[in-house]
Amino acid sequence: MSSAGSEGPSAKSMNVPMKGVAILGSTGSIGTAALRVLGRHPDRFRVVALTAYENVALLAEQVAELSPSFVGLVAGTSSDARWRNGPPCLTEAAIHPDADIVLNAVVGAAGLQATLAALRAGKRVALANKESLVVGGPLVLDARRAGGGELVPVDSEHSAILQCLAGCAHVPVRRIILTASGGPFRGWSQAQLAKASVSDALRHPTWSMGRKITIDSATLANKALEVIEAHYLFGVPYDAIDVVVHPQSLVHSFVEFVDGSVVAQIGIPSMELPILYALTHPNRIEDQGVPRFDPVAAQAMTYEAVDHEAFPTLGLGIAAGRQGGAAPAVFNAANEQAVALFLEQRLTFPDIPRAISSALDAIGDTAGDSIEALLDADARARRHVLEMFAC
Amino acid sequence: MSSAGSEGPSAKSMNVPMKGVAILGSTGSIGTAALRVLGRHPDRFRVVALTAYENVALLAEQVAELSPSFVGLVAGTSSDARWRNGPPCLTEAAIHPDADIVLNAVVGAAGLQATLAALRAGKRVALANKESLVVGGPLVLDARRAGGGELVPVDSEHSAILQCLAGCAHVPVRRIILTASGGPFRGWSQAQLAKASVSDALRHPTWSMGRKITIDSATLANKALEVIEAHYLFGVPYDAIDVVVHPQSLVHSFVEFVDGSVVAQIGIPSMELPILYALTHPNRIEDQGVPRFDPVAAQAMTYEAVDHEAFPTLGLGIAAGRQGGAAPAVFNAANEQAVALFLEQRLTFPDIPRAISSALDAIGDTAGDSIEALLDADARARRHVLEMFAC
Repeated sequence: MSSAGSEGPSAKSMNVPMKGVAILGSTGSIGTAALRVLGRHPDRFRVVALTAYENVALLAEQVAELSPSFVGLVAGTSSDARWRNGPPCLTEAAIHPDADIVLNAVVGAAGLQATLAALRAGKRVALANKESLVVGGPLVLDARRAGGGELVPVDSEHSAILQCLAGCAHVPVRRIILTASGGPFRGWSQAQLAKASVSDALRHPTWSMGRKITIDSATLANKALEVIEAHYLFGVPYDAIDVVVHPQSLVHSFVEFVDGSVVAQIGIPSMELPILYALTHPNRIEDQGVPRFDPVAAQAMTYEAVDHEAFPTLGLGIAAGRQGGAAPAVFNAANEQAVALFLEQRLTFPDIPRAISSALDAIGDTAGDSIEALLDADARARRHVLEMFAC
Repeated sequence: MSSAGSEGPSAKSMNVPMKGVAILGSTGSIGTAALRVLGRHPDRFRVVALTAYENVALLAEQVAELSPSFVGLVAGTSSDARWRNGPPCLTEAAIHPDADIVLNAVVGAAGLQATLAALRAGKRVALANKESLVVGGPLVLDARRAGGGELVPVDSEHSAILQCLAGCAHVPVRRIILTASGGPFRGWSQAQLAKASVSDALRHPTWSMGRKITIDSATLANKALEVIEAHYLFGVPYDAIDVVVHPQSLVHSFVEFVDGSVVAQIGIPSMELPILYALTHPNRIEDQGVPRFDPVAAQAMTYEAVDHEAFPTLGLGIAAGRQGGAAPAVFNAANEQAVALFLEQRLTFPDIPRAISSALDAIGDTAGDSIEALLDADARARRHVLEMFAC
């Protein structure tokens, strides 16, 4: 879909078609990393659409530099009349005719509709919005089937799995082992966790990310979302997805094949690599921007079992995934709401799994066969958590 | 090439063609491991030819159990008139019409001609005889081209690399990192190495293998052979092949791609997996015989730089590989001869690299453009070492 005449000299000479990229969430942690990656490869990719939640100033800077054909701002209004305002700008950007690849880096369940729209329009979705699959997994797979789009993960763990499988989609997998850093509270007791502060929770040992996902790493909610995401992305049953704590965050996940062989993808933590791979998969392009992995300089790689007593959120999320229907959407919405309250210091760290568990008990077995039903369950789960902690 | 009517019920029902396998070196460490692997998959593979060096008793047992169409004994004679005797039995087995796959597990340069013959005959060569590529790399690649055969490594490191690349042969590699256990003398000083005994050298920390390769692991000669092997197998220049010491032998090698991503194959040390993979590549089949890798139960994975002062053999071998011509054959032959003398306690451990270095200085720049020239250089290198230590 790239327009003629816009190709850089290098891509032209190598006969590589220029790809148009829409970035949903361009001012966030993933969005800005993506712009750094794209900036290194102007001969292969051009930014055709940008959307941001509310960071008008940074979005305006990006627009001035990149001149995308489409600009959207989800919350608030801009002075530039050419920008689209409000949540529908996400789906508009996702189906933009110049976009071959839609990087969905929206935070939370708000990303689902853009994923569906892009897949139905036959785009490649580079998916950093794992909630799309958590909330609406079956709908997303239907949309892919219907529209012929592609779904390529940006999460480092799922990118790792895809890289381990690359070109071998027909090879049967026995087990996926997702690695988890363990977050800032690895090794903490339940008593210690009861006193954990917001700033403690935001101190992630290996990854620099947005606030919401950093808290999700501390509770292991993020890993629960990733288990559900892996289930849908790779068609692997829950029994065949394990989680192991790997404090160094160097091994981004393991795949065990049916013959017992294990393949892993490894690297210094940097989201730029999974973003780049999502753009180029199944190929790779020369890139010097990713920090180089040197085994001799690296820390020893160690692995531990998850402490499910201290971190019950992981088990709650996997159970919700197995339950299906609206349960994963309820898990995700209750978690989003509880994390927002935790960040406002309105509840304690252990209240987060308590809130999720209560919401799942109350609403978990709602049907989830349409987007309306899922969004309704999402809204009910948020209300449930707000009411639990209303004083 | 499998004969009709010989397929097991399961392979038949799955419509998988039965493959005939010839095993050269069936009584050795790799040969017996291969028979265990094949014994677990009688519906997919049948043994059509067996050859051994001199272990008549074990070969006779294998023949009684498996009834191969062809049996060869390289050294000594057997009472069974149907067996072929003498070195030419290796090439006869390698081109046997019922063999689809030739597992070449011959020890040393003696394996080269069988590799060439099998490739010229269009077979898949499952190559455990790395000396084929070390001594005759360019000839082996020519034979593959001429005959349309396939070359699939059985060495755990090269199998790891192939698995990391699987299906992605078109993806450019930036660097291969071969792992080395470091052998029994990891951390030893040059003074300590001067007093190393044969039994010290045979005490390998992680792999149970034949005597020759175990000594080669102690000197790191084996890793030099593997660097040369990797150069020819994967078409990667020497500058892009690194060696790192990994004492746990869990990561069997790393591949760094041009985008900076690193993929590794991991597993509990067992030759059964690379053997199985060489039989099934690029596919995999369900197999429960390989010990399962559990990251939580595994030791911490650590990596160290090679101590080139204490272990000069690695550098000598890589330099010989770069030099090309007959130099790699000289390196290999001088090493084989020196190891044989070391095992007879006729020279010290540091004499091994001394012998190799001296042979390379004397004969290294001989041409190596024909098998005759290579075999002549090989013989001269062996004589050179024998004369060095003749008392």
